[in-house]
Amino acid sequence: MQVLRTLAELRAWRDAQGAVAFVPTMGNLHEGHLRLVEAARRHAPAVVASLFVNPLQFGPGEDYERYPRTWESDCAKLVDAGCDALFAPAVADMYPCTQTCFVAPPPLAGELCGAHRPGHFRGVLTVVLKLFNLVRPQTALFGKKDYQQLALVRDMAAQFALPVAIVGVDTVRAADGLALSSRNGYLTAAERAEAPRLYRTLMAVAERLRAGERDFPRLEQDAAQALMRAGWKADYVAVREAGTLAPARAQGGEFVVLAAAWLGGTRLIDNLETVPG
Amino acid sequence: MQVLRTLAELRAWRDAQGAVAFVPTMGNLHEGHLRLVEAARRHAPAVVASLFVNPLQFGPGEDYERYPRTWESDCAKLVDAGCDALFAPAVADMYPCTQTCFVAPPPLAGELCGAHRPGHFRGVLTVVLKLFNLVRPQTALFGKKDYQQLALVRDMAAQFALPVAIVGVDTVRAADGLALSSRNGYLTAAERAEAPRLYRTLMAVAERLRAGERDFPRLEQDAAQALMRAGWKADYVAVREAGTLAPARAQGGEFVVLAAAWLGGTRLIDNLETVPG
Repeated sequence: MQVLRTLAELRAWRDAQGAVAFVPTMGNLHEGHLRLVEAARRHAPAVVASLFVNPLQFGPGEDYERYPRTWESDCAKLVDAGCDALFAPAVADMYPCTQTCFVAPPPLAGELCGAHRPGHFRGVLTVVLKLFNLVRPQTALFGKKDYQQLALVRDMAAQFALPVAIVGVDTVRAADGLALSSRNGYLTAAERAEAPRLYRTLMAVAERLRAGERDFPRLEQDAAQALMRAGWKADYVAVREAGTLAPARAQGGEFVVLAAAWLGGTRLIDNLETVPG
Repeated sequence: MQVLRTLAELRAWRDAQGAVAFVPTMGNLHEGHLRLVEAARRHAPAVVASLFVNPLQFGPGEDYERYPRTWESDCAKLVDAGCDALFAPAVADMYPCTQTCFVAPPPLAGELCGAHRPGHFRGVLTVVLKLFNLVRPQTALFGKKDYQQLALVRDMAAQFALPVAIVGVDTVRAADGLALSSRNGYLTAAERAEAPRLYRTLMAVAERLRAGERDFPRLEQDAAQALMRAGWKADYVAVREAGTLAPARAQGGEFVVLAAAWLGGTRLIDNLETVPG
């Protein structure tokens, strides 16, 4: 695997490739990221991942500084997964001057996680656009665990006419159901044992949707209260239309249940798509 | 010259080219546009122009509806200038859905013309980004007459790491000094006779800068008052650093004098770069 540390190295590698599939990451890789790389190999003869902890998408007081950096094991995992190149720029490569030109995201960026992390999706979309412009991939792959991010990247790609196909890849879960996440590493042993409740809570909502319930505010409240009774602080539980994250309609076809909640000092997110029976 | 009416036609043409130079226009072409095409031919083996009157960059009450559409003569001029292809999409091709994802421009977009045309540069940068993504040029050429637009496009290209070189091309003037502009067609005969005063006013400021004057507010006021005494309504006259449009510094190297002013119902803009003696 070629490690590309600078824009010049990336450009030289890129110019020697044909079609490229791209997996942007912030490192601290787990099985979910590796599935993205494996899926990428089915889309193009060359696969490039990026590893960049993007300061622009972290708010003040968030975990930018302590976000886990695990370079050696990340590289080893990418080699095993068959990644051809890893673009790992420095912050000064991505932001040589103060960034004052941004992607202004659609209103969805102010809802759900965006309502609790002001500026987060502006930072995400801006760095994704820059990475696309540098890597010039034909296909880019994103995990469905960050469902709102995927929806916004898809929307940006469509609205900006980006020449990149956006592919979503299923969430990978631990045996007890917990969605894999770099932030799971922040959990204490007791919190780790409690953490699968988030997914179970989503499954309970999905079950009631499949049974025909359509009182979305009630479903959301019940789920949030279940989490709070177990000691969580829920940012939100929401039922939305699958794909676009438009408000759920009683006559809607496919739903997704999304949640973000704090377990101690760690904010976990998860979601579950459901086709009503 | 191939006329490309749809995104599919553009894509088919583009995929058959190597390097491409791109001249975005809103039509109603004059000698200034044709110089852009001629310059483009020195940058790439294939030159594509676009003709799209972009609703997103016109404010309410501005001249979107009456902006001159002169398709037949535009095509003839582009053929003569050696343009290989013309991309002329419909509004529904460029904006198939309501645009809710934009380029959020840097603060300069709120100054000078941007202070008088809220949202204008957001609309310009958003459509330029979309056109770049569709046309995928190696080089794009813009007239220096729209100096602030050129500065903002350059800044966006740098800050978003766009794989496009931005080239500015000198303003073309009538024999009496008036900068060529599609909006000159709005002028009555009497207004057309008065219009060169704008350029003469810029030259007077440039002359005083060359003579060593550095009281920028006074230079700006004197020029605005000269226009107003002649019956113009000046939006602004400004001395800035050339290139970036940063505030002028007394120790600065190169300046540009910019103005926007109304002559009757027509808003004219012009600018003049000056190297102090």
